[in-house]
Amino acid sequence: MATEQPMTQTTDSARVEAFSDGVFAIAITLLVLDIKVPVADGARELWHALGAEWPAYCAYLVSFLVIGVMWVNHHTVFSYIARVDRTLVFLNLLLLLVVAALPFPTALLAENLRRPAAAHVAAAVYGATMVAHAVTFVLFWLYVTRTGHCFDERVDPVAARATRARFGLGLLVYPVTVAVAFLSAPLALALHGVLALYYAFNQTPIPTREQPAPDPD
Amino acid sequence: MATEQPMTQTTDSARVEAFSDGVFAIAITLLVLDIKVPVADGARELWHALGAEWPAYCAYLVSFLVIGVMWVNHHTVFSYIARVDRTLVFLNLLLLLVVAALPFPTALLAENLRRPAAAHVAAAVYGATMVAHAVTFVLFWLYVTRTGHCFDERVDPVAARATRARFGLGLLVYPVTVAVAFLSAPLALALHGVLALYYAFNQTPIPTREQPAPDPD
Amino acid sequence: MATEQPMTQTTDSARVEAFSDGVFAIAITLLVLDIKVPVADGARELWHALGAEWPAYCAYLVSFLVIGVMWVNHHTVFSYIARVDRTLVFLNLLLLLVVAALPFPTALLAENLRRPAAAHVAAAVYGATMVAHAVTFVLFWLYVTRTGHCFDERVDPVAARATRARFGLGLLVYPVTVAVAFLSAPLALALHGVLALYYAFNQTPIPTREQPAPDPD
Amino acid sequence: MATEQPMTQTTDSARVEAFSDGVFAIAITLLVLDIKVPVADGARELWHALGAEWPAYCAYLVSFLVIGVMWVNHHTVFSYIARVDRTLVFLNLLLLLVVAALPFPTALLAENLRRPAAAHVAAAVYGATMVAHAVTFVLFWLYVTRTGHCFDERVDPVAARATRARFGLGLLVYPVTVAVAFLSAPLALALHGVLALYYAFNQTPIPTREQPAPDPD
Repeated sequence: MATEQPMTQTTDSARVEAFSDGVFAIAITLLVLDIKVPVADGARELWHALGAEWPAYCAYLVSFLVIGVMWVNHHTVFSYIARVDRTLVFLNLLLLLVVAALPFPTALLAENLRRPAAAHVAAAVYGATMVAHAVTFVLFWLYVTRTGHCFDERVDPVAARATRARFGLGLLVYPVTVAVAFLSAPLALALHGVLALYYAFNQTPIPTREQPAPDPD
Repeated sequence: MATEQPMTQTTDSARVEAFSDGVFAIAITLLVLDIKVPVADGARELWHALGAEWPAYCAYLVSFLVIGVMWVNHHTVFSYIARVDRTLVFLNLLLLLVVAALPFPTALLAENLRRPAAAHVAAAVYGATMVAHAVTFVLFWLYVTRTGHCFDERVDPVAARATRARFGLGLLVYPVTVAVAFLSAPLALALHGVLALYYAFNQTPIPTREQPAPDPD
Repeated sequence: MATEQPMTQTTDSARVEAFSDGVFAIAITLLVLDIKVPVADGARELWHALGAEWPAYCAYLVSFLVIGVMWVNHHTVFSYIARVDRTLVFLNLLLLLVVAALPFPTALLAENLRRPAAAHVAAAVYGATMVAHAVTFVLFWLYVTRTGHCFDERVDPVAARATRARFGLGLLVYPVTVAVAFLSAPLALALHGVLALYYAFNQTPIPTREQPAPDPD
Repeated sequence: MATEQPMTQTTDSARVEAFSDGVFAIAITLLVLDIKVPVADGARELWHALGAEWPAYCAYLVSFLVIGVMWVNHHTVFSYIARVDRTLVFLNLLLLLVVAALPFPTALLAENLRRPAAAHVAAAVYGATMVAHAVTFVLFWLYVTRTGHCFDERVDPVAARATRARFGLGLLVYPVTVAVAFLSAPLALALHGVLALYYAFNQTPIPTREQPAPDPD
């Protein structure tokens, strides 16, 4: 085997999933380090200091939900993928690069949410990170549906392409959160929470051959 | 397959377990970062500085035990679950949200335990986090026993419902630790250690068909 | 099944191993956070600042080796264990408690190694942590060899008991490192590195039935 | 079995891979902690503070890519390894020691890249870490190809030795990055990114028996 392996030569996807699960699990668990631990002498002062950290709690809740739902979606997509080639491993790495970066905009928002002018900037950076995530997810999915050879045998590759439009929805929605950031940073954060819940409960089904798709959405 | 997947459609539970194991393992290992590293010039000063950190060691021990036992219980429950639906994945995410948050009240208690007035507040927040954990665990278990379709075939779904009362015990016990926090913060911390040991050695058995349950507790 | 599960009822050991692997991998990777990142304007100042951190590099190297070899030994022991009961899960949790704590004495030694008087204390605390590790490992192994029901079928439980003495060797050796700490802290650190290498290349074999053990050591 | 296990006695490689995956996943996800979270009152100030952190973003991107590609290569090599002996476990531990250390030179570069004189030193340390990685990878591969008994049956051990030269390429290339560091630190960082991309898309194929290798490169 003297020639280079072609970029489309595939290997089993199990270890890529395990590595990705690790990155998701670590990123989601590191979020708590962004919540500063207050120290106070009196009970009232400590209650007050804890109360003043509401932006950190909100950012924790929303980002935990966001990474959790990203993981669920990643997991769902990989349940239809039986093997990976080197391009897909690389596109998956790009996707993980954004996931692993999320504790940074989360901390940025937590630290600046109570400073009206700066909060807009922090929320815009958070939204831009989500735009980057949507871009990497769409690139990943475009490649999988274009080549088809990574899919599990159950999947109908032609019908699967019809899901691209819905997978690309994030490319329209997340730029809106950047615009909303300049109106109200807390509203933008709440919007990210609502979008994560939407994606949690409205995943795009991937057409399979066992379940014929007479009316692909 | 043009219709949305119903919320109750199930998939294999293995990757949810692996992801949960990752979050438990990371949260339990991050606890050590809460122990401040003292620096001193003299031997006596360093012994003294190390001794002054007893609240951090106690908080580490108790929280390690608490997360460890949470993991054992999570593991035991999942040994009876063969598949998950989207609602269960979401309820599991809620449960992990509280587990991953535990390093925060642990550090809060470690930092404030030697300040009498503030210690009550820190211990109450610790207790409240455990109440939140009990609530997410009960929601998880109510959903599993109500629907029944996630159980492994060995499990007797009707008899399994009889375990709800014991699983709900934490909803009565953990609010008591919040009350105890206002009497004595160290006592509240010790109580959390004792409760973790109780749960370690008194897990509720889940009735299975192979082992008939004539007298469900 | 109305009765409590007896403490000796066993389940498969795979998930306990996966959780333990996670804790070992995280603890070993967190060690790098103990190395302070120096900032300087000039090249010479930065070289100097980097050079001044030699205790942190030594502590990193030794503790990486120590946790790595602990993992190898844990892995070897579990390769002979087919199932776990609740007591063993709990003893394993105790063992992991010490493993996860190791970044603390490592940082303590790194920060204090250049302060002659304080260094003795830091090295003694490091040695004491290793004593604690040896104790938890011996308790684990005593329980496994005493009960026998957790072993894989290949293992000869009677002959396995004969390995206790060698497994208990750490109980004699690690207290010596505490004594050495008061002579010379760098020597004590070096001794921990040498002991890890010894354990890396001199693991106690566990007698199996396929390979009869006429002369158990 | 009274004799010591010979150093070449092999066991299954699966748990070594899982542990290594954990270390790679944690090291890659810890990188984000090196990006400082700026706080500002005004929007302009926060944009400015965010902009001033470009060295941290560049270092994050390059190191994420570097560790990601290291993981891909490690994963590829292990796909040809069916079992490990104690020496290989130890050589793998050495390799992971360097991987886990990478967040340190990454942070060093991020903190010093804008200080012209110090940046050369930081980039040289980064390059030296990559030299150390190349050395551990070559030692690992020399041992695997020299002994041959760890390979999967598919692999042609004689032909596999012919890949040593290409695996050793890093020993020539990474010292060059150290030299480049003294010309321009940003250029050296960019070179590390380019090299990671080169390794991502030009992995050395390992000759297998099923695919005869008439013209080993």
